[in-house]
Amino acid sequence: MSPKITTELLKQLRQVMKNPKHVQEPVQAYIVPSGDAHQSEYIAPCDCRRAFISGFDGSAGTAIITEQHAAMWTDGRYFLQAAQQMDNNWTLMKMGLKDTPTQEDWLVSVLPEGSKVGVDPFIIPADQWKRMSKVLRSAGHDLVPVKENLIDTIWTDCPQRPCKPLIMLDLSYTGVSWRDKIVALRSKMAERKVMWFVVTALDEVAWLFNLRGSDVEYNPVFFAYAVIGMNTIRLFIDGDRMTDPAVREHLQLDSTLEPEFKIQVMPYGSILSELQAVGAGLSPKEKVWLSDKASYALTEAIPKAYRYLTPYTPICIAKAVKNASETEGMRRAHIKDAVALCELFNWLEKEVPKGTVTEIIAADKAEEFRSQQKDFVELSFATISSTGPNGAIIHYKPVPETNRTLSVNEIYLLDSGAQYKDGTTDVTRTMHFGTPSAYEKECFTYVLKGHIAVSAAIFPNGTKGHLLDSFARSALWDCGLDYLHGTGHGVGSFLNVHEGPCGISYKTFADEPLEAGMIVSDEPGYYEDGSFGIRIENVVLVIPAETKYNFKNRGSLTFEPLTLVPIQTKMIDVNLLTQKECNWVNDYHQKCREVVGAELERQGRHEALRWLIRETEPLVRVQ
Amino acid sequence: MSPKITTELLKQLRQVMKNPKHVQEPVQAYIVPSGDAHQSEYIAPCDCRRAFISGFDGSAGTAIITEQHAAMWTDGRYFLQAAQQMDNNWTLMKMGLKDTPTQEDWLVSVLPEGSKVGVDPFIIPADQWKRMSKVLRSAGHDLVPVKENLIDTIWTDCPQRPCKPLIMLDLSYTGVSWRDKIVALRSKMAERKVMWFVVTALDEVAWLFNLRGSDVEYNPVFFAYAVIGMNTIRLFIDGDRMTDPAVREHLQLDSTLEPEFKIQVMPYGSILSELQAVGAGLSPKEKVWLSDKASYALTEAIPKAYRYLTPYTPICIAKAVKNASETEGMRRAHIKDAVALCELFNWLEKEVPKGTVTEIIAADKAEEFRSQQKDFVELSFATISSTGPNGAIIHYKPVPETNRTLSVNEIYLLDSGAQYKDGTTDVTRTMHFGTPSAYEKECFTYVLKGHIAVSAAIFPNGTKGHLLDSFARSALWDCGLDYLHGTGHGVGSFLNVHEGPCGISYKTFADEPLEAGMIVSDEPGYYEDGSFGIRIENVVLVIPAETKYNFKNRGSLTFEPLTLVPIQTKMIDVNLLTQKECNWVNDYHQKCREVVGAELERQGRHEALRWLIRETEPLVRVQ
Repeated sequence: MSPKITTELLKQLRQVMKNPKHVQEPVQAYIVPSGDAHQSEYIAPCDCRRAFISGFDGSAGTAIITEQHAAMWTDGRYFLQAAQQMDNNWTLMKMGLKDTPTQEDWLVSVLPEGSKVGVDPFIIPADQWKRMSKVLRSAGHDLVPVKENLIDTIWTDCPQRPCKPLIMLDLSYTGVSWRDKIVALRSKMAERKVMWFVVTALDEVAWLFNLRGSDVEYNPVFFAYAVIGMNTIRLFIDGDRMTDPAVREHLQLDSTLEPEFKIQVMPYGSILSELQAVGAGLSPKEKVWLSDKASYALTEAIPKAYRYLTPYTPICIAKAVKNASETEGMRRAHIKDAVALCELFNWLEKEVPKGTVTEIIAADKAEEFRSQQKDFVELSFATISSTGPNGAIIHYKPVPETNRTLSVNEIYLLDSGAQYKDGTTDVTRTMHFGTPSAYEKECFTYVLKGHIAVSAAIFPNGTKGHLLDSFARSALWDCGLDYLHGTGHGVGSFLNVHEGPCGISYKTFADEPLEAGMIVSDEPGYYEDGSFGIRIENVVLVIPAETKYNFKNRGSLTFEPLTLVPIQTKMIDVNLLTQKECNWVNDYHQKCREVVGAELERQGRHEALRWLIRETEPLVRVQ
Repeated sequence: MSPKITTELLKQLRQVMKNPKHVQEPVQAYIVPSGDAHQSEYIAPCDCRRAFISGFDGSAGTAIITEQHAAMWTDGRYFLQAAQQMDNNWTLMKMGLKDTPTQEDWLVSVLPEGSKVGVDPFIIPADQWKRMSKVLRSAGHDLVPVKENLIDTIWTDCPQRPCKPLIMLDLSYTGVSWRDKIVALRSKMAERKVMWFVVTALDEVAWLFNLRGSDVEYNPVFFAYAVIGMNTIRLFIDGDRMTDPAVREHLQLDSTLEPEFKIQVMPYGSILSELQAVGAGLSPKEKVWLSDKASYALTEAIPKAYRYLTPYTPICIAKAVKNASETEGMRRAHIKDAVALCELFNWLEKEVPKGTVTEIIAADKAEEFRSQQKDFVELSFATISSTGPNGAIIHYKPVPETNRTLSVNEIYLLDSGAQYKDGTTDVTRTMHFGTPSAYEKECFTYVLKGHIAVSAAIFPNGTKGHLLDSFARSALWDCGLDYLHGTGHGVGSFLNVHEGPCGISYKTFADEPLEAGMIVSDEPGYYEDGSFGIRIENVVLVIPAETKYNFKNRGSLTFEPLTLVPIQTKMIDVNLLTQKECNWVNDYHQKCREVVGAELERQGRHEALRWLIRETEPLVRVQ
């Protein structure tokens, strides 16, 4: 990787920072955050402004440019990559290290008195604006919204905002019509006494209208906003997508509908002025509900006294609890995904010893097998295909410079998933195609014990996922080991592979309680820098649990694995398992054999079926 | 319990709320919080203002009196008691129930426009003031500080503020001189670039100066504040306590000292004016460090730009990590405490079958045995001595109206502890003096499994206690059971039995990481309303753990029980224990037998020794 030369770009940016054509008054600093106007985790090429100005294209980072300096804040995952991708115009600010200043403190230390700090008000979330603005103001500076994005003014070959065709999901996939979702949303609004709800997250718009898109890679979403009133529905969306007769029919745009279900389609770019009009016309006590992560621009459109901000929106919470149709879809998607992986691992077992399979080839082969499955749309994230020391890089993605050949001497870690029209998958398996060492087996077995401890956990209704995180670590902790990431994240239903408001992590306290129908990943790991990485990940469904007693009538929950891919028994030190853990593995493998076996049979994939049967032989524990 | 008649008192209070002699301008509402000026958990009789005005004397509750209404907010522990103790002038506001308004929302709903809400600025913590004041202001009202406490103006027979003699602790107890504590504190202040530190919590003042008092029951503290500068030490304390030659010698008040260690003694009541003088004399960048729980009055004395507020003070954190002398003292105290409890349980075993032992008699007997031990000072909290259904009331304290006789047919729960000059104890044992039912044994064994899971847990350095809470519940959860309180709290060293900043609870996220030398309780339970209560509590010391590996060189921690009192094996269903858990019990009992046995022997308590030996017979698990 050679760094991007940014001298000329920075010069141009510093000019527009003073140019009255672009800024009301000169700004002495300009902030370029990572995100887009919807606070998406994955963004479209046209929104990769921070990568454009700096060269650093990791998933997290904030650039700040002043007259004299250009600085980049990013976290431990990206220290090396950022250092390699940026030229020496840039200072790397390593977040999480003790001596690294916060963005605000750094600004205060370098800016001349009474400076203006500019930022695109559509990109910065309102809560972050509030925090920064407070610190800057108390030091005599001002955070100011710059309406025109200054990067866009100098980005001459900026790609166009994608505007791809929409996919309509019928009731057999969604279980609930968009009309009924609107009715449910309005009843939540009535409960909280709000008159308007502003949908800003892309997956929330997609979920609400039972539509999907492909404007952002890996995430089946499309650029749009929506504003839902008690009697109106406004959808802000661009392009000729609304001229597609199938879309018009799906949204009943041409039907005679009760007025409260009539969707008004408006240009994507008109959201701000429309919202300002809503804000200006509010009567006392008419509140407007927004996510507290919505952009500063949209939040400011509503006068402060009328705002109702929550960390999780009612759509986010409703979307997380999958209904029967969604759950069935997720099950089907996971069976198809398991078929693809059985094919892949069977193929790898034969090919790896020849020394011709690289990480990239293996990843491509996984995609090939997945794409053969019904309703396959695309991958759900960039495949992590890593062998040996690359496995210890938690967010590794093979590129030609790092591409390593799989061998019978190293552990192989594959973390991959796909979007099918009926569901989203995300699975990690760690395999050895030769003979693993006793130490590798020992570590694998501790990770497996952690995986089982979460998967088999029984816990009361109302428990938050973060309370389960330590179960995943206990076996590792006992031996002085650990892993430095959370244990699980929410998973969308043919939507984003990472979604709120639930998860399993020691890092948060603000997650919503788990409830039956929620879907999360269970993915403990162990990573030895320079040697290997181990992770075992299933996507699991929260289901009611039968218990002997029922304290305060609260009811209990547990998990059902949706992922049905064998866990390599060769890697397990059976004598480190309890009988209960051993039974869990055998029951799990029995289910893989039955359910995925039947599908392999149906698809006539006999070699992969034989592989599955071999890999699901019961473990026997020596007492 | 008959309610207190408050009609006349409320009339008087409403008069002073309008009387210009007492208020600058009339207040339409007056708030009476629970606490004292130091935000203490336990308060002196002169600070029980809420109990005086309402009759309700539970440990938590806030009264608000308006022209028309008198309302009391309290939590689930006290719904019944508050309803019984208050007359019908009062409305009970049941906190935690869905329909109960917050104090702010209720005020907004009942007050006439533009009202003033008064509160004693010394009693309300600054963070709470901020929250309330914001809501009231946005509704057009004002929260105003009323300098004179209005309850005190009508409380004609208010007891005097206690001013009892001080106890001096020498180095053999504290391990560190007050001088060295000041040096360490100043170095923390220098690190954070603050010039002043204000000590507002009573246990922090006591710890800093190696002094103890008895102004508040159960907590060996005395009324005082301190303000530590980089070159000055001011101690605000009343009475003739500073004329005691031993105290003068301990604090070196008459010695020729370097000026920065010279303690200026000032009247307790002068803290505000002195702090205002400090605040007025600050140069730019001279910060003053306060707890964010300090009173509004003291916080306001420092101009906002100069305040440095943290949830935990450096004293709170230093105090939590016990040094070798303190740890040794705690060990000694726990051995003596165990001697007293062996005597008690031996006595109960003989006396209970006679049907003459009540909960109060048992509690008194426990105190009697404890008071025979060296360096005994007082109890560390009101003894919870409860049998049968009373055991299910988590914060039960026997009173004549509820006093129940112990029998061979009911479970007995004793949660008790003492202050010794060398340490503080807190232990719960649950016993049956007849034959427990299979169900009682089953529940007891789940609680024991939870207790062991925490006590034997190994976890990385830097782990926060709340991450261990679920370990204590896992065995109960598996059967659909749970308990509705946290698992552990920090314990002081001859100081408050509840102290921050560490603990083991699902309820908090803001606890400080556990480190070697910290002391917490481990006390899971199970409570069946109307039937019985079970709790098993040891005080445990955080110690380094030896592990097979050492990930990232972080090191690991575990717990060593300081409490050494047998856990009744009669209550254990051995077949529900794993071999590892069984070994834990046997090792623990072996240690009780050796360590406490030696002390019983030394004290010539042969009958109690025989009881101990009987009660520590190893468990045998049938495979």
